Amino acid sequence: MEGLTKIADLGMPRVVIVGGGFGGLELAKSLADAPVQVVLIDKQNYHGFWPLLYQVATAGLNPDSIISPFRKILNGQENFFFRLAEVKSIDASEQVVETSIGLLRYDYLVLATGTTSNFFGDELMARNAITLKNLTDAIALRNTLLSHFEQALQIGDVEKLNSMLDFVIVGGGPTGVEMAGALSELRAHVFPRDYPELDLKQMDIHLVQSGPVLLKGMSAEASAKSLQYLQEMGVQVWLDCRVKSYDGYTVTLSTGEHLVSRTLIWAAGVTGAPVAGLEPSALLKSNRYQVNEFNQVAGYDNVFAIGDIAQMATKDYPDGHPQVAQPAIQQGHLLAENLRRRLAKKPMEPFEYHDKGTMATIGRHRAVGDIMLFGKQFHITGWLGWLGWSFVHIMALVSFRNRLSVFVAWAWNYITQDKGMRYIIGKPKAPLKEQELEVKPLV
Amino acid sequence: MEGLTKIADLGMPRVVIVGGGFGGLELAKSLADAPVQVVLIDKQNYHGFWPLLYQVATAGLNPDSIISPFRKILNGQENFFFRLAEVKSIDASEQVVETSIGLLRYDYLVLATGTTSNFFGDELMARNAITLKNLTDAIALRNTLLSHFEQALQIGDVEKLNSMLDFVIVGGGPTGVEMAGALSELRAHVFPRDYPELDLKQMDIHLVQSGPVLLKGMSAEASAKSLQYLQEMGVQVWLDCRVKSYDGYTVTLSTGEHLVSRTLIWAAGVTGAPVAGLEPSALLKSNRYQVNEFNQVAGYDNVFAIGDIAQMATKDYPDGHPQVAQPAIQQGHLLAENLRRRLAKKPMEPFEYHDKGTMATIGRHRAVGDIMLFGKQFHITGWLGWLGWSFVHIMALVSFRNRLSVFVAWAWNYITQDKGMRYIIGKPKAPLKEQELEVKPLV
Repeated sequence: MEGLTKIADLGMPRVVIVGGGFGGLELAKSLADAPVQVVLIDKQNYHGFWPLLYQVATAGLNPDSIISPFRKILNGQENFFFRLAEVKSIDASEQVVETSIGLLRYDYLVLATGTTSNFFGDELMARNAITLKNLTDAIALRNTLLSHFEQALQIGDVEKLNSMLDFVIVGGGPTGVEMAGALSELRAHVFPRDYPELDLKQMDIHLVQSGPVLLKGMSAEASAKSLQYLQEMGVQVWLDCRVKSYDGYTVTLSTGEHLVSRTLIWAAGVTGAPVAGLEPSALLKSNRYQVNEFNQVAGYDNVFAIGDIAQMATKDYPDGHPQVAQPAIQQGHLLAENLRRRLAKKPMEPFEYHDKGTMATIGRHRAVGDIMLFGKQFHITGWLGWLGWSFVHIMALVSFRNRLSVFVAWAWNYITQDKGMRYIIGKPKAPLKEQELEVKPLV
Repeated sequence: MEGLTKIADLGMPRVVIVGGGFGGLELAKSLADAPVQVVLIDKQNYHGFWPLLYQVATAGLNPDSIISPFRKILNGQENFFFRLAEVKSIDASEQVVETSIGLLRYDYLVLATGTTSNFFGDELMARNAITLKNLTDAIALRNTLLSHFEQALQIGDVEKLNSMLDFVIVGGGPTGVEMAGALSELRAHVFPRDYPELDLKQMDIHLVQSGPVLLKGMSAEASAKSLQYLQEMGVQVWLDCRVKSYDGYTVTLSTGEHLVSRTLIWAAGVTGAPVAGLEPSALLKSNRYQVNEFNQVAGYDNVFAIGDIAQMATKDYPDGHPQVAQPAIQQGHLLAENLRRRLAKKPMEPFEYHDKGTMATIGRHRAVGDIMLFGKQFHITGWLGWLGWSFVHIMALVSFRNRLSVFVAWAWNYITQDKGMRYIIGKPKAPLKEQELEVKPLV
């Protein structure tokens, strides 16, 4: 596409933001009254609160309660323009990005494209594993797991039955740990009511972690406690273990053991999702853009990167900040301020990360948290951790409506021990093959 | 598939219900303590409250708030079994239904398969029109209309712009009237905030009705009032007019006029969705099964049909009952009673329809209702009709959770005049072709 896309020229500097995740959205909001035109480009028309994605996948929250349309969030912000489009490449010399709806000129370009799952080159794994990076993934996982339980009713063979009911989660970070906990709650409270015909002792949940501890970025206390919680809840945790291969049915572990499962959830690693067109030298081995303390991409003056796609080496974080919401939000916020300063011919301020702490929830009354207060780290667990985690996540949601919706759902789930969103919407998994069905002869 | 599907034989008569709509669900629930095994087969794992489907399609309600999983609704009913499957045919001599998961024996078979859209043989229309029969349809329509508005931002040509922004609804029954009203509210309150870049005067809503009145099953008062409301809200109503053809872009009317729209919503007619295998003579011209006053399909003793798929000729309804929720629910309820009576060797009771009235809502404070009270028909309109409609629909929802969710959404929409569920989830419509995009040369 050769021409410029149709968008108003406001006669002021244009900031083009690619990606409306935590960083991109915070930047767009923080530029509200700045003397710039803000153009946000995203492949979706909504912002998603992905830390709760695993709850959508496990029927605890409905998809709508963790997303909010960009146009609604930024209603009334006059300098804001949204375009639903895909960015294909950057031409920094012309100051133009090529998108699926035409070329777009920028004065300042901000890349906030986040990450994508990293299968470390294992094509078989990439084809067969289930990822959990966006809403479509979460709905697909929900459809798959519920379809498997429906199909399991027709299976007599014990191994095939186990392939339907067993789950293997790869990666012992927050996503893996929280997913394992949520599946365990489904097994304990929801599925026995829904499937009295099934023997749920057959449902195994395996969590495979390559290193010696779970939640490795957190304190030793949190790691140990999360392991204890998961084991109490009947999750089989494999430490110092890797998945060597997965063909969609058989899981081969580095210990030589084999598991059988049609649902392997990949929560093991991510890699940056850069855009084509910048100098290859700006991209580090992690596929993240090398940025300086102002989030400027190495070698560029008016191209910035924030959040997961940016790697800023600092004294405390020589390999870059953790790829979670807080650094992205803080970088987005500061960059808005820095763009204002630049336009006012003032020097930019360097970024400094304020770590507020980390939390993960494993189940009802079971959570772990390392909280930073007055410069000191505190550990909370159990009931208090769980309440704290719930509070922090509700408050972090983007709209009051999302907060209300999640609060009501959680209160409901808590009281009834139910997870009500057990729908198979859209295409269910492929039906069983005839030879897999257990049928009795019709005499 | 030749063998019997895997399901427990409880050693008591088995009632197989095909379809969990209003009639099938009511029957299954009403058989709670009866000495029978109840097997419900449905293509979806949830019951849907389709009278509110148009609100999902127009972003007023989220999809989850009008559906409920069968397993959750019937949790704890010990004689109830659910199977997610498609029924392919009936072998009445062997008392067996063939399904996608094997054969299933029945002692009593109840067909509650409802209807499907009727295009009267117009293949071009069937290919290009949008229907609104299930949740997938509603989500697809929501995705389509929102994508069109996003794409419209890139269009310069006035006719092409109109093809994106204009809507043609075929059929002036409740679905058509309610849909026209909902679109008109989006135009008045939601889209101006979301799309300040678009000239919404270009957005036209056409409602095409073949007969001389809207809502033809209702009173003359209700018909006249609904027309007045729609016209006040700026909907262009075409009475005594038909759509002759539609190629996905140009709409040709029977009056010779042409409209241009990429979104034609078909709400003009339905036809029965019977199952293969019964005697062709049992099927009437409407594709509905001919049933007697006990809902027995003509020529069969232990095969029943209820709801939209059943046509029972009575003195008041020589062409069968209206194809709405109430007759289905009442027939399901009575059939449960009659099956109990039969097993107790008592004679069955004939069905008698108790018409409670009909309502339709057009917009905020604008609704019409013909209510039956003490054997007399009362007409309500305006604010009172709107409140009554809202109350009746909330109370008719299947679970408390659905009721709460719809109530909160409506209260919110009412206060903010907003419809918040403006998400494009899943595949958006195909992107614009290059030649349709308005682009300016890059100089």
